[in-house]
Amino acid sequence: MTFAATVLTLYPDMFPGPLGQSMAGRALGDGLWSLDTVQIRDFAEGRHRNVDDTPAGGGAGMVMRADVLARACDHALAARPQAPLLYMSPRGAPLTQHRVRTLAAGPGVSLLCGRFEGVDQRLLDARPIEEVSVGDYILSGGEMAALVLLDACIRLVPGVMGAAASGEDESFENGLLEYPQYTRPSEWEGRTVPEVLRSGDHARISAWRQRQSEEQTRLRRPDLWERHTGARAQSPSGARREKQEEDEA
Amino acid sequence: MTFAATVLTLYPDMFPGPLGQSMAGRALGDGLWSLDTVQIRDFAEGRHRNVDDTPAGGGAGMVMRADVLARACDHALAARPQAPLLYMSPRGAPLTQHRVRTLAAGPGVSLLCGRFEGVDQRLLDARPIEEVSVGDYILSGGEMAALVLLDACIRLVPGVMGAAASGEDESFENGLLEYPQYTRPSEWEGRTVPEVLRSGDHARISAWRQRQSEEQTRLRRPDLWERHTGARAQSPSGARREKQEEDEA
Repeated sequence: MTFAATVLTLYPDMFPGPLGQSMAGRALGDGLWSLDTVQIRDFAEGRHRNVDDTPAGGGAGMVMRADVLARACDHALAARPQAPLLYMSPRGAPLTQHRVRTLAAGPGVSLLCGRFEGVDQRLLDARPIEEVSVGDYILSGGEMAALVLLDACIRLVPGVMGAAASGEDESFENGLLEYPQYTRPSEWEGRTVPEVLRSGDHARISAWRQRQSEEQTRLRRPDLWERHTGARAQSPSGARREKQEEDEA
Repeated sequence: MTFAATVLTLYPDMFPGPLGQSMAGRALGDGLWSLDTVQIRDFAEGRHRNVDDTPAGGGAGMVMRADVLARACDHALAARPQAPLLYMSPRGAPLTQHRVRTLAAGPGVSLLCGRFEGVDQRLLDARPIEEVSVGDYILSGGEMAALVLLDACIRLVPGVMGAAASGEDESFENGLLEYPQYTRPSEWEGRTVPEVLRSGDHARISAWRQRQSEEQTRLRRPDLWERHTGARAQSPSGARREKQEEDEA
């Protein structure tokens, strides 16, 4: 089955953009995923086809109209009833690798890209739209966030990555950052590859990598480390949470 | 002064990509920022110009070589000694709007885009490279993350946004999510714009928006809310932190 991406945007020419190259581009050519863009302006009415208006209550910038966006969203929901409709927004739930994996295993996504000061709140109240944020910073529009979300999903779509690189040994997949990597040359500028990695002792290598993952996560991302250790605590609630995670997986 | 972006990548054709359109594209045309891409492969040697090799200690995928990348980084560091060199990596410090604002106020950025299983750790140990993450998910490479970081920075470069939309009233700028927005029509599908926003009473509108920002942040992002209220607590350490933030600002 193909992963079907639908993007609702004022800038359809931004797509596939960088997703037309490299791994995602090859997969698009091979039909492993599909891309439809929907020009939001096509759902505007009147001579000027306005998609936005000034904010109620005053303030800088423009707000995208609920009526125009609702028509565009209804079009996407009718065309892809199985695909979740996501609005790329800094007010949304932060995107996680777990969510990416769930999306990639599904039929696809429809992505609403806002511009200006965002969209009329009534649209989000009236339609089955999930707000998703790619990070705690502000972009010029949802398009760049949509590219990021699609890139993260597409690499996990079956057949896109070779079996040799299934992505199971990466940052976040086990709640930890990835261990440091090394390759040839074994000595460079007086720096050597750690001895254990040259030992050929797979058990020792595996233990070293796990320790490095844990240590780097604790040092660099105390927030992730706390969640990781909290989830695995031997308290009854910790055990419950672990059970729940297994059930969800 | 122009904001100078240098991108070290195996896929220079991905740039400017979506940054060539809309606000960022116009600003590029107007010379408000500049873009240089550096093909990493140009710094590889030998007949095959290999940039990667298998991971020391085994494992899936390929790791980018320290020696090749160091030559590419040294080139960027020599060409733009004032610009920080960032490596886009899920193991990096999460990008924040505060960091974006600092970068946008500076001379520019040099961005190293990795591919495959990442880069040889010795490169990161040996060069003044800052690891930055755009979010807790895995991309097919650093290119998409670089596009996101550049988009976030460019809109804040002086002259890119009009003075009317200075970006000061947005999510994260005050540690809170933005309040909900509304625009015409004042009634849509039986849903009306909140009365307060039609009152013309600027003090009431401002208080309502502040309350909405706080409530939405508390509900949607308890992590941000905790940081926000913690930073403003009246304890001696809270006051110290607030003072420090002012000094940094």
